[in-house]
Amino acid sequence: MRATLMYEAGDVRTEDVADPSIEEPTDAILRVTRACICGSDLWPYASLERRETGRSMGHEAIGVVEDVGNEVRNVKRGDLVVMPFAFSDGTCAFCHEGLHTACVHGGFFDDYGTSAAQAEAIRVPYADGTLFPLPVGEDDELMSSLLTLSDVLGTGHHAAVVSEVEPGKSVAVVGDGAVGLCGVIAAERLGAEQIIILGRHEDRLALAREFGATDVVTERGDEAVERVRDLTGGFGAHSVLECVGLGQSTASAIGMARPGGAVGRVGVPQDEAMPGGEAAFFSNVRVGGGPAPARAYIEELLPDILEGRIEPGKVFDRTVDLDGVPDGYRAMADRESIKVMIEP
Amino acid sequence: MRATLMYEAGDVRTEDVADPSIEEPTDAILRVTRACICGSDLWPYASLERRETGRSMGHEAIGVVEDVGNEVRNVKRGDLVVMPFAFSDGTCAFCHEGLHTACVHGGFFDDYGTSAAQAEAIRVPYADGTLFPLPVGEDDELMSSLLTLSDVLGTGHHAAVVSEVEPGKSVAVVGDGAVGLCGVIAAERLGAEQIIILGRHEDRLALAREFGATDVVTERGDEAVERVRDLTGGFGAHSVLECVGLGQSTASAIGMARPGGAVGRVGVPQDEAMPGGEAAFFSNVRVGGGPAPARAYIEELLPDILEGRIEPGKVFDRTVDLDGVPDGYRAMADRESIKVMIEP
Repeated sequence: MRATLMYEAGDVRTEDVADPSIEEPTDAILRVTRACICGSDLWPYASLERRETGRSMGHEAIGVVEDVGNEVRNVKRGDLVVMPFAFSDGTCAFCHEGLHTACVHGGFFDDYGTSAAQAEAIRVPYADGTLFPLPVGEDDELMSSLLTLSDVLGTGHHAAVVSEVEPGKSVAVVGDGAVGLCGVIAAERLGAEQIIILGRHEDRLALAREFGATDVVTERGDEAVERVRDLTGGFGAHSVLECVGLGQSTASAIGMARPGGAVGRVGVPQDEAMPGGEAAFFSNVRVGGGPAPARAYIEELLPDILEGRIEPGKVFDRTVDLDGVPDGYRAMADRESIKVMIEP
Repeated sequence: MRATLMYEAGDVRTEDVADPSIEEPTDAILRVTRACICGSDLWPYASLERRETGRSMGHEAIGVVEDVGNEVRNVKRGDLVVMPFAFSDGTCAFCHEGLHTACVHGGFFDDYGTSAAQAEAIRVPYADGTLFPLPVGEDDELMSSLLTLSDVLGTGHHAAVVSEVEPGKSVAVVGDGAVGLCGVIAAERLGAEQIIILGRHEDRLALAREFGATDVVTERGDEAVERVRDLTGGFGAHSVLECVGLGQSTASAIGMARPGGAVGRVGVPQDEAMPGGEAAFFSNVRVGGGPAPARAYIEELLPDILEGRIEPGKVFDRTVDLDGVPDGYRAMADRESIKVMIEP
């Protein structure tokens, strides 16, 4: 089959690889009908060191179940399913608590064996605990929005949940990428009264407004903190969604939180120690977040997509086939595209 | 009057200073009947640079109201009151939310003007919002426990609240100082099933057991993390109270938290960036805490002291008069004493 491999920063190729097959009795094989490129794929695209065997790329997919191991019970051949970016057994204590990204048997798809989502097919471990059947056909018009359940919508929602968004609260969203934009959707959905988006790209900020942002801040650093304070009566936002992961954005997110407020981090941190930690202490700001349990959130978020209340699929502004994936990476890295969908 | 001044690290003196007097109509003057030395006083005792005018020391007190400004309504001459370590107006949005340490007119006593608590008397700003009348006489046998309402009990309780201690949960308390010991009391009070105290001093660990600790860990760093994991089924503690503030203790506190758990920090952080921030992210551990709103917690904690259900006053193992304060600092710094009470 055709699949996407990364050999070093900037070097992404579409190549022929062996078809995936059932290796464990809990596996399923999906024929991928939709995948996409993630903002987090841009970290290795910017920094991966040269390697002999390419790294399999892609962790977001919708697909049709082609084969299942003999212990799989919850999905069957022919089911259309969404695959969250982490696999999980669905039975351990953490899965029961809704933190599937801490599953004791779980893991992440990227670079897991040779199977990943930017490909014609993928092997999914722990299919019963991981995959979620969708009640639509494989070319349904909602497909792009449904695909966001695999990562960016659940991740934006996680940031909103962890930052304790509630009706009537003021919210700041740091970052206008696909996750930040989904964070706006999530904050609006949870009843935020004021939603301030921080970003610099006109097309993304326009989409943020469409999703429910009430204010736009284009400054960065200390100026951004000041602007958010000005917009929130001088005190800062009750809830801040950190959707970038850089040191400066993290420190700014903490700085613009109201004393006693909360920051939800979902941008993958690029520092071991958390910038702004002392400031968070003196203002009693809670900081949480991490890899989102996207699997746990599907049940809550899916009805809003099916019933048309939210349209997160609008974050996709380009569609490519597998041969177009390398250029899709380039377009996202160059900020030509917000998020690229793949139709293998 | 006699008061305590610090001139540089290690140089604490009891000196004659001017009596405090009403400066604002919202002030009160207390005759201090009990004060104490705080673990946080040991930071300047270890590091303060030489200064010409001494720094007034002390932020924890019980006293009798001697005089009030003409706008003070809630306390009157002759009242016995406890004074939390921060003053607050009691009327702003943050005071109404119970975060008195973010009061828009508030502040901390140390080095505020010339008045502080390790003295015969103290000027208290915003007396109505700050002071809490006590329903006992000034030499009541509960006085040492009541004095902990000014700081260490509220601070330990804050760490427990922020780290989300609830019935049935496992708790780790990092630090066996007076705050850590009060954290054990708070965790026990909130229904924790397992309370692991981390420390190295036999007398303190014995007191921790008396307060409700179920397990003791004397290791530090990675070994301490491993021990806590071993004691909690391999996963870590649901709630971790960080009562030290050093980089290593903070990183350890995060490392010993169960994925999806919470850390409550009340040790004053000695680093700008928070060690362990990346680890907290990947295990979805929430980190909160800061200066405790001790004033907010008095109403909840006071009945348990009055009715004898908790005895936090046991953290005091030495009593001095004002002339004995310099040696009290030495004794706490040398770990000869857990916490020193002052009877001016």
